[in-house]
Amino acid sequence: MTVQKTLAGSPVGAPADADPELAALYQGFHRENLIPLWTEIGDLMPPHPRPRAVPYLWRWRDGLLPMARKAGELVPVGRGGERRAIALANPGLGGAPFATPTLWAAVQYLNPGEDAPVHRHTQNAFRFVVEGEGVWTVVNGDPVAMRRGDFLPQAGWNWHGHHNVSDAPMAWIDGLDIPFQHYVGSTFFEPGPEQVETRAAPPLSRSERLWGHPGLRPLSHLGPVPATPLLAYRWEHTDRALTDQLALEAEGYPATVEAGHAAVRYVNPATGGDVLPTIRAEIHRLVPGTRTAPRKQTGSAVCQVFDGAGEISVGDESWRAERGDLFAVPSWHSLTIATESGLDLFLFTDAPMLEKLHQDRAEAGEAR
Amino acid sequence: MTVQKTLAGSPVGAPADADPELAALYQGFHRENLIPLWTEIGDLMPPHPRPRAVPYLWRWRDGLLPMARKAGELVPVGRGGERRAIALANPGLGGAPFATPTLWAAVQYLNPGEDAPVHRHTQNAFRFVVEGEGVWTVVNGDPVAMRRGDFLPQAGWNWHGHHNVSDAPMAWIDGLDIPFQHYVGSTFFEPGPEQVETRAAPPLSRSERLWGHPGLRPLSHLGPVPATPLLAYRWEHTDRALTDQLALEAEGYPATVEAGHAAVRYVNPATGGDVLPTIRAEIHRLVPGTRTAPRKQTGSAVCQVFDGAGEISVGDESWRAERGDLFAVPSWHSLTIATESGLDLFLFTDAPMLEKLHQDRAEAGEAR
Amino acid sequence: MTVQKTLAGSPVGAPADADPELAALYQGFHRENLIPLWTEIGDLMPPHPRPRAVPYLWRWRDGLLPMARKAGELVPVGRGGERRAIALANPGLGGAPFATPTLWAAVQYLNPGEDAPVHRHTQNAFRFVVEGEGVWTVVNGDPVAMRRGDFLPQAGWNWHGHHNVSDAPMAWIDGLDIPFQHYVGSTFFEPGPEQVETRAAPPLSRSERLWGHPGLRPLSHLGPVPATPLLAYRWEHTDRALTDQLALEAEGYPATVEAGHAAVRYVNPATGGDVLPTIRAEIHRLVPGTRTAPRKQTGSAVCQVFDGAGEISVGDESWRAERGDLFAVPSWHSLTIATESGLDLFLFTDAPMLEKLHQDRAEAGEAR
Amino acid sequence: MTVQKTLAGSPVGAPADADPELAALYQGFHRENLIPLWTEIGDLMPPHPRPRAVPYLWRWRDGLLPMARKAGELVPVGRGGERRAIALANPGLGGAPFATPTLWAAVQYLNPGEDAPVHRHTQNAFRFVVEGEGVWTVVNGDPVAMRRGDFLPQAGWNWHGHHNVSDAPMAWIDGLDIPFQHYVGSTFFEPGPEQVETRAAPPLSRSERLWGHPGLRPLSHLGPVPATPLLAYRWEHTDRALTDQLALEAEGYPATVEAGHAAVRYVNPATGGDVLPTIRAEIHRLVPGTRTAPRKQTGSAVCQVFDGAGEISVGDESWRAERGDLFAVPSWHSLTIATESGLDLFLFTDAPMLEKLHQDRAEAGEAR
Repeated sequence: MTVQKTLAGSPVGAPADADPELAALYQGFHRENLIPLWTEIGDLMPPHPRPRAVPYLWRWRDGLLPMARKAGELVPVGRGGERRAIALANPGLGGAPFATPTLWAAVQYLNPGEDAPVHRHTQNAFRFVVEGEGVWTVVNGDPVAMRRGDFLPQAGWNWHGHHNVSDAPMAWIDGLDIPFQHYVGSTFFEPGPEQVETRAAPPLSRSERLWGHPGLRPLSHLGPVPATPLLAYRWEHTDRALTDQLALEAEGYPATVEAGHAAVRYVNPATGGDVLPTIRAEIHRLVPGTRTAPRKQTGSAVCQVFDGAGEISVGDESWRAERGDLFAVPSWHSLTIATESGLDLFLFTDAPMLEKLHQDRAEAGEAR
Repeated sequence: MTVQKTLAGSPVGAPADADPELAALYQGFHRENLIPLWTEIGDLMPPHPRPRAVPYLWRWRDGLLPMARKAGELVPVGRGGERRAIALANPGLGGAPFATPTLWAAVQYLNPGEDAPVHRHTQNAFRFVVEGEGVWTVVNGDPVAMRRGDFLPQAGWNWHGHHNVSDAPMAWIDGLDIPFQHYVGSTFFEPGPEQVETRAAPPLSRSERLWGHPGLRPLSHLGPVPATPLLAYRWEHTDRALTDQLALEAEGYPATVEAGHAAVRYVNPATGGDVLPTIRAEIHRLVPGTRTAPRKQTGSAVCQVFDGAGEISVGDESWRAERGDLFAVPSWHSLTIATESGLDLFLFTDAPMLEKLHQDRAEAGEAR
Repeated sequence: MTVQKTLAGSPVGAPADADPELAALYQGFHRENLIPLWTEIGDLMPPHPRPRAVPYLWRWRDGLLPMARKAGELVPVGRGGERRAIALANPGLGGAPFATPTLWAAVQYLNPGEDAPVHRHTQNAFRFVVEGEGVWTVVNGDPVAMRRGDFLPQAGWNWHGHHNVSDAPMAWIDGLDIPFQHYVGSTFFEPGPEQVETRAAPPLSRSERLWGHPGLRPLSHLGPVPATPLLAYRWEHTDRALTDQLALEAEGYPATVEAGHAAVRYVNPATGGDVLPTIRAEIHRLVPGTRTAPRKQTGSAVCQVFDGAGEISVGDESWRAERGDLFAVPSWHSLTIATESGLDLFLFTDAPMLEKLHQDRAEAGEAR
Repeated sequence: MTVQKTLAGSPVGAPADADPELAALYQGFHRENLIPLWTEIGDLMPPHPRPRAVPYLWRWRDGLLPMARKAGELVPVGRGGERRAIALANPGLGGAPFATPTLWAAVQYLNPGEDAPVHRHTQNAFRFVVEGEGVWTVVNGDPVAMRRGDFLPQAGWNWHGHHNVSDAPMAWIDGLDIPFQHYVGSTFFEPGPEQVETRAAPPLSRSERLWGHPGLRPLSHLGPVPATPLLAYRWEHTDRALTDQLALEAEGYPATVEAGHAAVRYVNPATGGDVLPTIRAEIHRLVPGTRTAPRKQTGSAVCQVFDGAGEISVGDESWRAERGDLFAVPSWHSLTIATESGLDLFLFTDAPMLEKLHQDRAEAGEAR
């Protein structure tokens, strides 16, 4: 029989058109909305992950930022479009506005005096500010200042809008689990007022005043808190934590992930775990002259150079990246970072999805 | 400016071709692999889930089973194709061999004397037997009999093959998280021997002898067990559990999910939680004259009528279904089951993905 | 100064009476309800646990059982005393009716036709039946038969009473965390009716019909279940589980804790963890000619020989024990069991207290 | 029969001496180390907790502190006694050096230049500083400054010693689970060097530099951390957290436990749960004119007035307490605090023991 040979010869054989019985069978499959595994298994169940997403770098200074500025001139923000956000579209994902299969990353831009209208959605989100200040995001009525280096998570189904109280436009990045929720079908959305509910612009949000004291939990809030109640992780703390790790390393104590490589994970102070149910976020600092050991893992990531510059290598791609540049790391692609002058890297991943569902696997190579 | 009107008029506006500056901006987006949110948000972030998958019914007696039999005549099983499995392809998913975005369901067919070769993969899997017997699945060398009504889970990365020791062919269904693992990029696969490692065909697997005693845990196995170590959930137990629930209801005690509707979830005896990290499986029994309250929830399901017949309604679709028929329930589609003559329904879902990532939401209607 | 020498000479020095200033200080301590650590530390913080409880064996056939029978003749059961239960009083515990510091063990005796009145208390409890049958314990109205080899747990704050429907008296053992709850001050008690609420005496309790099917959880009961909802663990299951482990061992598979030594832990089917929040219970089977490796651990245990006979060694004590005999194992006392003819041993411990509070430590020796 | 009347007449009846058979039975019980439940149940299983420990207040300024000073003159610190610590002995506990059945509280005193020798023990411990500074506790070689208002936890089995680098003596309180570990028999102790391993006296410990940044977790330390890795909770943070709660309350947001009553719990930054496996610690601030609602709960507590003064009521006792005064709250004794001038209260409890073992119960009254 033809197909036996075909199968033996090529694991993912197409059906032999020559055999009329077989052809009828395949037509039957098609008619009945059935697809045989044996023609698909090579793609579906490869020896190791073979993601469609590709390694890709988006430039900040000469790409994202001028694009966002131009959009700021031409495109209004408001009801309907909701946000002046421009998404990174991974070239491997067939035109979808997704940085990786699970993660959304966008640059958002707000002109002086503008309001991004209030809404809520089940998508988990965060903002990270690579430069600028002057925008307040108002989450459930709590105004949260956004400044360079701040990480501002906001779990699903909280009302939020932004407004720019300064006299300069501001750009930042948004990270969300839009692709994942689109994929599993868990997405709800509800519009709110056109303008944020308060113009107050305090330096600290109420969330920070309640939850931002290290190791201290308010007794008024002892119930379960699946996503972080802390709406701002300020750069001054992050910077000090990284600085301290490197100082401890220099004093001879284990504090860094590898020599010259400090890193912190943003965590939910009520659990010590990831800030959001679906998204992990971290910031890494490499001292000048550092090269990380290559590492690959299941699941995907998006990274942004927060400061400095370096050579990034993802799978077979490599780029020189500098402040603001963003890149995507597909599943099971080895990531290495090297820097002559020092580098701070922000990154977010879908690791909680992989870990909670026992799909995480990692492989670390040797540093060269 | 044109776009403002467009945005105001239609939330998901396409760019106005008339404005050359705007046109240039959109070309720039395209060139830089960027996509604006404001043209996509209606699809990406709808008010409630709008899955691409559709409600669909696959017939067993006149569809799947004769197809599988024909494949049994024409298509060999063996290395390369690995399994004579024919997948349900949801018509809404663009030709992918997926019953729902996250779940794989297939009918598998094995002739007398055949071996489905040994392999292992990260995909979590189970088998459920709607009719027949005579095949043993050998999991890490432990031979597990497969008989009508048995549920046979098998967590990722365990070696397994099947062989038919009887003189009749046998068909059953396979359920896996192939689509999900393909999506996140966590799939590993490794081939093993062409034939199962043992021809022993004991009535009980070793896993049942170790783990199948109610409320009794072997002291030799106290470590963490993220997926069920029990490889067979026998119909005799399931049937008795359902019968007992209905008897208890008749005696006046709370034991059923609603009047005339008994149900059990297959659980990991080491945790009391779902059998597999990504898949939930249950069996429901409706006594004659029962109609379930409509219920919709995020995430998707695949169901098979195990016994009896009834009217199935999923969203706006409805069918009369009988023994062996399979149907897909997309996210946020209301499911109702009614039966005059009684019905046993097996179902599996991606609920663990939704629940562990805090994306589960459900809405129950009133029974009519 | 006197005390310095004293301290140097003996770590747990008594104060030097010779020094009047020091004497005044110690008088002041006494007056103010203060006690210096330096005179107590040797007892309070020894190098390893030095429990007050001692190893002790209570004989069944010639001790507990005749005593219980005599009490059955002379002492009524009923309101006030509540139960005809006679507690094991560890000789090291200064006259308290406690088998170990945390655990209560008693023999309970009920004549034909008698009712032990209904009450509820926060104490977690179980019954274990070394011989006889004919008593039903009624837990929240659910009648549970008690028969040789059955383990019948019942978490705190459930109404329960017992009655003997047979024409013979019956004795069994009760295990509770009375000492622990007395110690921490968490004990509540409420009396109920003088007689059990139902005379129904079905072979299976409702709890077993709902929860006694291996790996199957009723969908009507998905909420958290901190203590086991299964009110009876029948000997037929336990016996089969132990038999299966030894058979698997004989076939060459890892199933026993050591050669010739099978063991199961009674677990909550809703969690896979211990049956009760404070008490662990297990049953061990040693084939003829087996000697266990010595093992000591923090926390205490009470054991009863269920069948057979053997040499028991606890710390420096050892006894020949046979069916029904009970013994106490104090903290950090090495336990070894040897048997020529085979032995089944039931045991319960305070391990959940130690483990959940991170106070568990164990040391296993070599088998001789 | 005599005893029947006795039982009916008094629930906890003593045996009737008149009945010779009964007398013989009771002699038999005594001989065999058995104790009947029916004579003990009233004490063992009361309707609600009836702890032996009593409410008691120890004065700081005129009691503990001068006593500690005197001990500082007369009693050396060093090997053998290990610590110059003076324990609160609850008058209800029969002369044991325990503040409550489960908790140890002591004032410790160290003269300029003295070392409290290095040791480790399984007991979980903390220090809390009501006044003074100048001592460093060195935990596993990490020097931790101790200053007024600081809370310094240190989980079991970590090496630690103290030394006073200032020119003034210093007193502080120690809290440990010595009584509990003594009770269950889990206590191990190991002496180390006579002097602390480093004289370095940095303002911040290494633990704070690694773990003291709010919401930031070092990637070098992602494994499980059952007890807090943060060795110092500084007063400046605690004070600011309490101040912020009261300010938020004044602004109209839910931030306090009741009007005018702010409170934080010290938590493990790696879990958000209690700092130590067995001990909970909190600090409460009452603004002038506040009276707390009475509250009773199972388990016991020790409190110290950190600042201000107020009226304390525990069960039927009440005292006016001021800075430094300590008091014990036995199980199920109602606690109320009232203050005209404002009060900061530090407290620690055995709540983790009760909660993890499902023995917690609480009852809150109305504020008058």
